[in-house]
Amino acid sequence: MRCLARLSSKALLVLCSLLALLSLLLWSRCSQRSPIPPEPPERRGNADAEEASPHDRPKAPGIPGSAGKGGLRYEEIDCVINEEQTVKGRREGAEVFLPFSWVEKYFQVYGRITQSDGNERFEFSHSYSKVYAQRAPYRPDGVFMSFEGYNVEVRDRVKCISGVEGVPLSTQWGPQGYFYPIQIAQYGLSHYSKNLTEKAPHVEVYETAGDGIGNGDGNGDWTVPKGCSLTTVWDKSRLSGVKQFSCPESSEGVSLELNNGRDFIISFDLKFLTNGSVSVVLETTERNQLFTVHYVSNTQLIALRDRDIFYGIGARTSWSTLTRDLLTDLRKGVGLSNTKAVKQTKIMPKRVLRLVAKGRGFLDNVTVSATAHMAAFFAASRWLLRNQDERGGWPIAVTRKLGEGFKSLDPGWYSAMAQGQAMSTLVRAYLLTKEPAFLGAALRATAPYKLPAEQRGVKAVFMNRHDWYEEYPTSPSSFVLNGFMYSLIGLYDLKETAGEKLGKEARLLYERGMESLKAMLPLFDTGSGTVYDLRHFMLGTAPNLARWDYHTTHINQLQLLASVDDAPIFKEFVKRWKSYLRGGRAKHN
Amino acid sequence: MRCLARLSSKALLVLCSLLALLSLLLWSRCSQRSPIPPEPPERRGNADAEEASPHDRPKAPGIPGSAGKGGLRYEEIDCVINEEQTVKGRREGAEVFLPFSWVEKYFQVYGRITQSDGNERFEFSHSYSKVYAQRAPYRPDGVFMSFEGYNVEVRDRVKCISGVEGVPLSTQWGPQGYFYPIQIAQYGLSHYSKNLTEKAPHVEVYETAGDGIGNGDGNGDWTVPKGCSLTTVWDKSRLSGVKQFSCPESSEGVSLELNNGRDFIISFDLKFLTNGSVSVVLETTERNQLFTVHYVSNTQLIALRDRDIFYGIGARTSWSTLTRDLLTDLRKGVGLSNTKAVKQTKIMPKRVLRLVAKGRGFLDNVTVSATAHMAAFFAASRWLLRNQDERGGWPIAVTRKLGEGFKSLDPGWYSAMAQGQAMSTLVRAYLLTKEPAFLGAALRATAPYKLPAEQRGVKAVFMNRHDWYEEYPTSPSSFVLNGFMYSLIGLYDLKETAGEKLGKEARLLYERGMESLKAMLPLFDTGSGTVYDLRHFMLGTAPNLARWDYHTTHINQLQLLASVDDAPIFKEFVKRWKSYLRGGRAKHN
Repeated sequence: MRCLARLSSKALLVLCSLLALLSLLLWSRCSQRSPIPPEPPERRGNADAEEASPHDRPKAPGIPGSAGKGGLRYEEIDCVINEEQTVKGRREGAEVFLPFSWVEKYFQVYGRITQSDGNERFEFSHSYSKVYAQRAPYRPDGVFMSFEGYNVEVRDRVKCISGVEGVPLSTQWGPQGYFYPIQIAQYGLSHYSKNLTEKAPHVEVYETAGDGIGNGDGNGDWTVPKGCSLTTVWDKSRLSGVKQFSCPESSEGVSLELNNGRDFIISFDLKFLTNGSVSVVLETTERNQLFTVHYVSNTQLIALRDRDIFYGIGARTSWSTLTRDLLTDLRKGVGLSNTKAVKQTKIMPKRVLRLVAKGRGFLDNVTVSATAHMAAFFAASRWLLRNQDERGGWPIAVTRKLGEGFKSLDPGWYSAMAQGQAMSTLVRAYLLTKEPAFLGAALRATAPYKLPAEQRGVKAVFMNRHDWYEEYPTSPSSFVLNGFMYSLIGLYDLKETAGEKLGKEARLLYERGMESLKAMLPLFDTGSGTVYDLRHFMLGTAPNLARWDYHTTHINQLQLLASVDDAPIFKEFVKRWKSYLRGGRAKHN
Repeated sequence: MRCLARLSSKALLVLCSLLALLSLLLWSRCSQRSPIPPEPPERRGNADAEEASPHDRPKAPGIPGSAGKGGLRYEEIDCVINEEQTVKGRREGAEVFLPFSWVEKYFQVYGRITQSDGNERFEFSHSYSKVYAQRAPYRPDGVFMSFEGYNVEVRDRVKCISGVEGVPLSTQWGPQGYFYPIQIAQYGLSHYSKNLTEKAPHVEVYETAGDGIGNGDGNGDWTVPKGCSLTTVWDKSRLSGVKQFSCPESSEGVSLELNNGRDFIISFDLKFLTNGSVSVVLETTERNQLFTVHYVSNTQLIALRDRDIFYGIGARTSWSTLTRDLLTDLRKGVGLSNTKAVKQTKIMPKRVLRLVAKGRGFLDNVTVSATAHMAAFFAASRWLLRNQDERGGWPIAVTRKLGEGFKSLDPGWYSAMAQGQAMSTLVRAYLLTKEPAFLGAALRATAPYKLPAEQRGVKAVFMNRHDWYEEYPTSPSSFVLNGFMYSLIGLYDLKETAGEKLGKEARLLYERGMESLKAMLPLFDTGSGTVYDLRHFMLGTAPNLARWDYHTTHINQLQLLASVDDAPIFKEFVKRWKSYLRGGRAKHN
């Protein structure tokens, strides 16, 4: 005290003032933000505030930006759910707040905190799928539904893109892998659609071997080690100069500098005279390690040894173009597994360094580009041409058990969805090329639509009345909705393309199917979503609810059909089914 | 400053200290409770806290028992719902809390704050209806489903209990009122069931007129004004003494003191020789006002004048028992309206003061009791006997439009539900009385089950395959589930009671119906509730979701049927449909 007493009055006065100011500041700040206000004053005269039920107040109580101010106590409250469990909620006056961690699981909804303009907000979603907008009326030569957004090859149930066939190999129902016509058609249709919606890619040309008349234009930057040779020769069948290489397997191979850090689709024309390989060396994101993808003149599907990935591409003893997505080839190789899913990997190619050829053969037109959609589309289309059987179908080589209560489908079964998606693909190939083989295959593909499951067809009849084309021609019938609609879209493409006479059968099948669809659509409507199939009715079980991505597929398909058929039921159902995505429901009585 | 300067250093020092203390206090309080904390410290080393998703924490953050005090740190956060609307939520760390006022409307669920042991808690319910427990296997002479809990006469669509007919009059689809056989049967069945489940009531006897052999036993406390007479006479038909009264309409009437403050069902035997009335004076909760209910020898349904309520009871020139629920009669009178609903009223009887008779006639066995279920049951049963038409049906006298897309049902239509519920009532009356008329009427009631709607029957056929008995035999068919199941329960009662030969038709109808039910039940299952009917399939519209009370009716009916038919589908559906009441859902694919 003595020490303090010695302070001058002036200094004390200043200190005093400062402290008073500090107190004042703290007080005002504290009272502004205190979530525990004094007991609220009696508000007997204020009936609005006292008696208004939460229903009457669209906004939760509390003034924005000053939660708590004005004095609502915020406290924990036990929330007893259906007399079964208790979760901790919060209470503020008449309002109760429920934790989203509970809401999320209970109602199967979605939500997350996001940043927007520096502010955090919570985004609640009833569902996770988005419906696409049907732009113009659907056309058989146009984009297929919303397939421009599909990326078939990325799916982990695609083991790889076969080097021999150029199409994806599925492991969905068998880890050994099998060619699944639905997946192949979707691979084709997605690339076809991307080709229409994306702008043409830049193509970097590394080697064209010139016009063969002697000047060096189009000659790449080759390295030819000792014991190897590389020459430009004239190819009579192609009317073009090509590069002839000769290189023992034991050598380093002749190598063409690419050094492209932007794009990862490589394409070249190739003809082997002996066994050989063309390899591509990649710099990757994996600690900048080099990986090499080898395309080898054998029939091995895919192999991984250390940082070498191998794809068999067949003998290739006549000219063909090999187009490979190096990103896909790298990632499928690194993720290679013996299970039904490719392992997850973060690896990405960073740079295409060079191409290396071994054995004896010819190369021409070496390019790198961002995309090569038409190559993928035609790979799929030609696979469908080659693999259609004498019954017009694409037999599926794996056993399929749709579920409890259904007999298994034995290998060799046909799917109306495969038939329809194949038609949609083949019709597009026909419209582009005018090759009659494509149209012929599409026309033959109607045959299984006419036969019941017992005769290896895909036709089911609902209650003796409505013809249905089965994605899975099970016993009993399953009436899978999305597969049926794909089968109808295929028929539509075909009947629109084939003309009145050739397309008659497709038209009749389409019309009968559309009649069934219009009649049966309500059976798939749960009032808050859709069912995937009618197994509940066929087996007397619980309805098999469609998860949101199938629900949106249903909507997308209906939108497509609504663009070519003006039956009001399509528009009404599209509208209502869309509303379910945002929590809408059919009325109750 | 000069003024301040004159303050002693000591005083300033004290002030300073006080202010410092205040600052300290405010600081500590303020920082403890501030909902806007300083930026959270980096917690890189604490992966658990950073990365744990809300899923991993069944308990919301915040320390139990210290809600508010000591500080739930929270902030308001905008919750954007399906990119459409914004509600104000609360945020505490990684947990977001959503206001129940929004949850309630969005998900159509229920909740309220309740008191329990002095603590407040929030009770959340997915639905508002309870399922009853099917005790023993159902029997035709037993409780009808859960009808012991029904109170038909209380419904505001019951205009009143007719004095002439002794049964309720409905205003549901016509404010003029009409006898609705379904309502009448349910009135009978509910009282029948209550009679089995409730204990026998105490009956206060006010007048039996003795045995007529001269002694005064059973004589009531009568007041006989001037100009009136009251004598005990021997009634040969009844072999009993009765009270004969004679009283001009203009007089006060002879009056019997009752003074019963406990029970409100009055009953007496009555025979008029002229026009007359029996009135009951009630003390009520309405400012202790007296109301008088007059039972008058005419056919007027009901009237209210001031505090007098009138019910016509017909001529009553031969002996009959009149049993009236004074509570119902009072409230229907006070709530009398010309709309399709009785007005809400809080009035209740408090005390039955006295009975007053006018005109000339006889009275006997005046009692007051808490219930008289069998009187109500037989009133319903005998109404059904009297009102069955030559086609075996109970025609319904109002137009019924089930909804958009259906043709109206013109007055005179039959309902399978009415036929079935009538059977269930009549079979019980038969089993109690062994009067063949009851069984005969029940047997004749099967006739409309065999005819299609176009022939005034109630039969529909689903997809040419499944026979169905229509609550509303609409065009197109509607397939209302609950009415169908009631129609089956009636058939069950009848076939079980009538024996193999007489009951053959009922048995065949029952068996065909049960087959249809088992086949079609899945069509009513939405995976989270049920649909009321199949109008969506018949009309191509949205499903007509069943509100929760219909959903529980479906379950109750299935439970009943499961107790007499061990098909697994019933047990499975009961289990799943019950789970929907607590937010359960069928699996999605």
